[in-house]
Amino acid sequence: MQDKNQRDISIRLKKLGENSSFVNDEVVSERNQKRHYLHTLRTEHLMSDTLDTLENLTYDELHEGDTATFTRSLSENELVLFAAVSGDVNPVHLDPEFAACSMFGERIAHGMWSGSLISAALATVMPGPGTIYLDQSLSFKRPVKLDDTLTVSLTVLRKEPKNRVIFQCAVTNQNNQKVVTGEAKVIAPTEKVILYKPTLPKITIEGCG
Amino acid sequence: MQDKNQRDISIRLKKLGENSSFVNDEVVSERNQKRHYLHTLRTEHLMSDTLDTLENLTYDELHEGDTATFTRSLSENELVLFAAVSGDVNPVHLDPEFAACSMFGERIAHGMWSGSLISAALATVMPGPGTIYLDQSLSFKRPVKLDDTLTVSLTVLRKEPKNRVIFQCAVTNQNNQKVVTGEAKVIAPTEKVILYKPTLPKITIEGCG
Repeated sequence: MQDKNQRDISIRLKKLGENSSFVNDEVVSERNQKRHYLHTLRTEHLMSDTLDTLENLTYDELHEGDTATFTRSLSENELVLFAAVSGDVNPVHLDPEFAACSMFGERIAHGMWSGSLISAALATVMPGPGTIYLDQSLSFKRPVKLDDTLTVSLTVLRKEPKNRVIFQCAVTNQNNQKVVTGEAKVIAPTEKVILYKPTLPKITIEGCG
Repeated sequence: MQDKNQRDISIRLKKLGENSSFVNDEVVSERNQKRHYLHTLRTEHLMSDTLDTLENLTYDELHEGDTATFTRSLSENELVLFAAVSGDVNPVHLDPEFAACSMFGERIAHGMWSGSLISAALATVMPGPGTIYLDQSLSFKRPVKLDDTLTVSLTVLRKEPKNRVIFQCAVTNQNNQKVVTGEAKVIAPTEKVILYKPTLPKITIEGCG
C-alpha cells in the first residue's frame, strides 16, 4: 500500500442544509490503517464511522489489500426499526416470548441488517460518498443476537477497468465469529469529497428509552 | 403448479405476547396466485403482505414456478429509518439540497432497502415464518426515488435436497422497470405455521407526520 499521508488531496467541503451538523476542526480517518490529519487529532474519534464527516477514497486511491471497518451493535431499536422499514415483522425478531420457543432461543437480528451494515460501510467509509453500488453477494453464517457487536471488514480484492472495484466483505461478531460473508462490486468515485454528515431527525420508539 | 386450494393444511395459531395484534376471522393469501379462504374474504386484503397473519409455505408445498409478491412505497420515513438502522447517513439519501446537485438530481433510496424488501418477502410471504436465510445475490440496476412503489417478485427456481430452495428475486418499480435482481437460497420450513403479526411499537420521526 502506498503511503498516502503526504499526498496532496483535493478537499471539497460541502455545506449541507439546515438539518446538517457542522463540526469542529478535527477529522481523523483510519481507513487503510492510516490517519489523515486534516487539522488536529481527537483521540475519541478512532473509528471512521464515528466521524462527523464522510471522506471518500477515489478509484486511484484504492489499492489491492486496503481494508476498512465499520462497527455497530444490535439493540431492540435496530430490531424494531428494521422491521418497520423492511416490513419483515416476523415475531422471531420482535416477540421475546415467541423467540424463546424458536430454534434460536431468543430474538435475533434480521439477516439483511448485517447486509445493510456492509452497504453502509461501502457508502460512508470505503470508498465512501460517490460510490455506485452494482452487486452484492451475502452468505448468512450464524444468527446475530441482542447486544452483539458486529464489525464489517472490507478488503479491496481487485480493481477492474472503468473504475470498478471488488471488495471482500466479512461481518464478525464480538467473539470473532463470522456472521455474514460476501463480495461487493462498486463503481468507485473519481472525485475526492469530504462531506459533513447530515444529522438525522430524532426518532422515538414508543416504550424504548 | 399443483392446485393447493383443497389441500389439507395443518394450521398452528400461535398467540403472541402483549404487543401483538389479534385479528378478526378473515385471512386471505394470494401466494401462488391462489387464495386460501380460511374464513371469509375481505377484499381490501388482496396483498399477502398486508394480512394480519403470517402463513408459511413448507418445502413440500413449494413447487418450481410458484410466485409471490410483496409491495412497499418509498417515503421520507424509509430514508430516515434506513439511515438510522444501517448507519448509512450519506446525504444523497437525506439532504434534498445536496441530492439535487448529485448525479441523481434528487434523494434516492439506499440500495439495500430494496434488498431488505426481498428478505421481508422471503421471511413473511414465501416461504414465510421458519425460513432460514442462507445466501442472497443482489444486482442494483437503477435508483429508487421518493414515492416510487416497489414490488418484490419471488419465483421458485428449483428445489434442492435437504429442504433447500432457490428463488429468483426481482424488484420492479411502478413503471415495471427492474431496480434490483438476484437469487436467494433458503432452507424452507418443514412445519406449517400461521402466526399473528406482532404490532410494532409506534415510531415517531421528528418533523415527519
